[in-house]
Amino acid sequence: MSSATAAPIGGAGLRGQSAGVTSLCTVGKSGTGLTYRGYDISDLAKHAEFEEVAHLLLRGHLPNQTELDQYKTALVAQRGLPDALKKALELIPASAHPMDVMRTGCSVLGNLEQEQDFSEQQQATERMLALFPAIICYWYRFSHDGVRVDTKDQSEPCIGGYFLKLLTDKSPSELHKQVMHCSLILYAEHEFNASTFAARVCASTLSDIHSCITAAIGTLRGPLHGGANEAAMAMIQDWQSPDEAEQKILQMLEAKDKIMGFGHAVYRESDPRNALIKHWSKVLSESVNDISLYAVSERVESVMKREKGLFCNADFFHASAYHFLDIPTKLFTPIFVMSRLTGWAAHVYEQRENNRIIRPSADYTGPEHQDWLPIEKRT
Amino acid sequence: MSSATAAPIGGAGLRGQSAGVTSLCTVGKSGTGLTYRGYDISDLAKHAEFEEVAHLLLRGHLPNQTELDQYKTALVAQRGLPDALKKALELIPASAHPMDVMRTGCSVLGNLEQEQDFSEQQQATERMLALFPAIICYWYRFSHDGVRVDTKDQSEPCIGGYFLKLLTDKSPSELHKQVMHCSLILYAEHEFNASTFAARVCASTLSDIHSCITAAIGTLRGPLHGGANEAAMAMIQDWQSPDEAEQKILQMLEAKDKIMGFGHAVYRESDPRNALIKHWSKVLSESVNDISLYAVSERVESVMKREKGLFCNADFFHASAYHFLDIPTKLFTPIFVMSRLTGWAAHVYEQRENNRIIRPSADYTGPEHQDWLPIEKRT
Repeated sequence: MSSATAAPIGGAGLRGQSAGVTSLCTVGKSGTGLTYRGYDISDLAKHAEFEEVAHLLLRGHLPNQTELDQYKTALVAQRGLPDALKKALELIPASAHPMDVMRTGCSVLGNLEQEQDFSEQQQATERMLALFPAIICYWYRFSHDGVRVDTKDQSEPCIGGYFLKLLTDKSPSELHKQVMHCSLILYAEHEFNASTFAARVCASTLSDIHSCITAAIGTLRGPLHGGANEAAMAMIQDWQSPDEAEQKILQMLEAKDKIMGFGHAVYRESDPRNALIKHWSKVLSESVNDISLYAVSERVESVMKREKGLFCNADFFHASAYHFLDIPTKLFTPIFVMSRLTGWAAHVYEQRENNRIIRPSADYTGPEHQDWLPIEKRT
Repeated sequence: MSSATAAPIGGAGLRGQSAGVTSLCTVGKSGTGLTYRGYDISDLAKHAEFEEVAHLLLRGHLPNQTELDQYKTALVAQRGLPDALKKALELIPASAHPMDVMRTGCSVLGNLEQEQDFSEQQQATERMLALFPAIICYWYRFSHDGVRVDTKDQSEPCIGGYFLKLLTDKSPSELHKQVMHCSLILYAEHEFNASTFAARVCASTLSDIHSCITAAIGTLRGPLHGGANEAAMAMIQDWQSPDEAEQKILQMLEAKDKIMGFGHAVYRESDPRNALIKHWSKVLSESVNDISLYAVSERVESVMKREKGLFCNADFFHASAYHFLDIPTKLFTPIFVMSRLTGWAAHVYEQRENNRIIRPSADYTGPEHQDWLPIEKRT
């Protein structure tokens, strides 16, 4: 028996090591920052609806008006949770972690509507796109308010608006829907981030798509990945003024506390998504006559730049933006799921197209040969 | 913005590339084959109970008799599915994929008994060890037979015996329990295989252990990973004699059909687990007066060696062994889950000990910069 000698480690966490090929996304290439299938994130976030971007990622091109209309109509028609999924969500207590609910909702769906064959991958993905807002809102409203929301609601044609409608029972404003489009577009895809890589590892055994997305949701749940916007919100929500924020941040830096929403594993100088969501945070702030949260956020940004040379990533101004949309903090990461589903699924398709099982080697640091010792001789 | 230049690909699927360090296992090192914390798989499979090996992997050393007794007592005391989990399992139809049931059972458990803190990892793992046989059997017996099994059954002190008792309602023989120990030990750990690697990617975001195990189950589900023993069973079950088997295998080889249960991504000359489970398959064959299945299996082994130079991996003789234990074929891979849980969890602990988020790079093969085209101008 023998194995290939493992190549030397290029860096812990595979940093800087290529683990495969993709045609979906570039992150941090000079001059562009972030592109989805060659389109700059700024163009997409400023001009597109989220459903256009979903179509770009999942079907390979930006849709024309007829294609977009058909796509949205198909997604709306697939709303409505299966009864067994509703019953399963009703069993989950209000104290559960919302990402555990998303992970479980996706997993249960895989039992009820199994992807039998890879020819069904688009169909299975569209169903998840249509249902994910309902999974989180049905559980949230039932466990917190005792209300069974009508998940077949068709009053809002887009995913972001549908989510806000289910969550609040009110028809969202045009501004709020526009912000949701931008937010969902910004979070849709990001190359071989940890959750996407987990989805590809799962896909590489030729498992079904619900397993892949379930794995990705569980991976996004970790505080080093998703959840940074929730942590940023928890940090800034009690600060009443920019001066108080500056004082607190300086104290946290002094104490070497981790400050969430800054810096990035790949970007070195700035995160191209920050300016795009920051713009909407400012507009929302004005729309609700906010007198402190946006100003606090801006001060935190400038102090972090001045003191540590660190820039805001996509998450930092998402915190205030979502807050202005009246979204409970603990539902921030589930929105990330509704969006990133598109990138995850597109990577699963890509992995399946040209697959080899992802099975790296490891460097062994454990004990050498141990002689067997019968249990009665062990101390 | 800039990113580190990705290192060249050492091989698709990270083959031969080191993705980290482990002290748990060696696979295919010359002269040993497979070791868990330095102990040879042959010693473990011949002399140990599965619970001893679980203790070795999860707590770091082989237990003495007092420790083993306490460990087993603690596991037995934790049997009994929570009511909400039972209700969730009752919602899943008989037509579901048993691995989807395992994945969902684990995910639901994470909602009901959330790992709040990494100090709870041992406790959360022991609860899963105690419950996984019940998750699959409760669903299977309810959906197929309309029976609600008593998951608190304490008549069998070990995990393998408990599984057989819940599945069949009968107290298993000593021989059957011995085979289950061997089988669960053989499947317990295997370095950076795809499902374990998925668990580590998930753990690297500092997610909870139920997310990690859920991701691993979904990854094991794929036919290139778990499921090879089921596929082997499906292949051999209709062959009435060794001569028929030889004829069919030659036809399959001629047609270039994939033959499951042979060869391995890491082992080059043999799989050290094969002889160990093959021994028990033979003993069981004699105990049930089998006149064809074992002989068919042996002939397949010799034809594959002669024609292709390929050896049986751990899965091939597991097919006949499980069949002689009266286990339905579709439950083979869930047994793998009950066992590999120990390796997965031990790797999660190890990843957490010295963590860096697993975030590789990718080689981009997609379109270069695309100019934005407003929707009305798209064709």
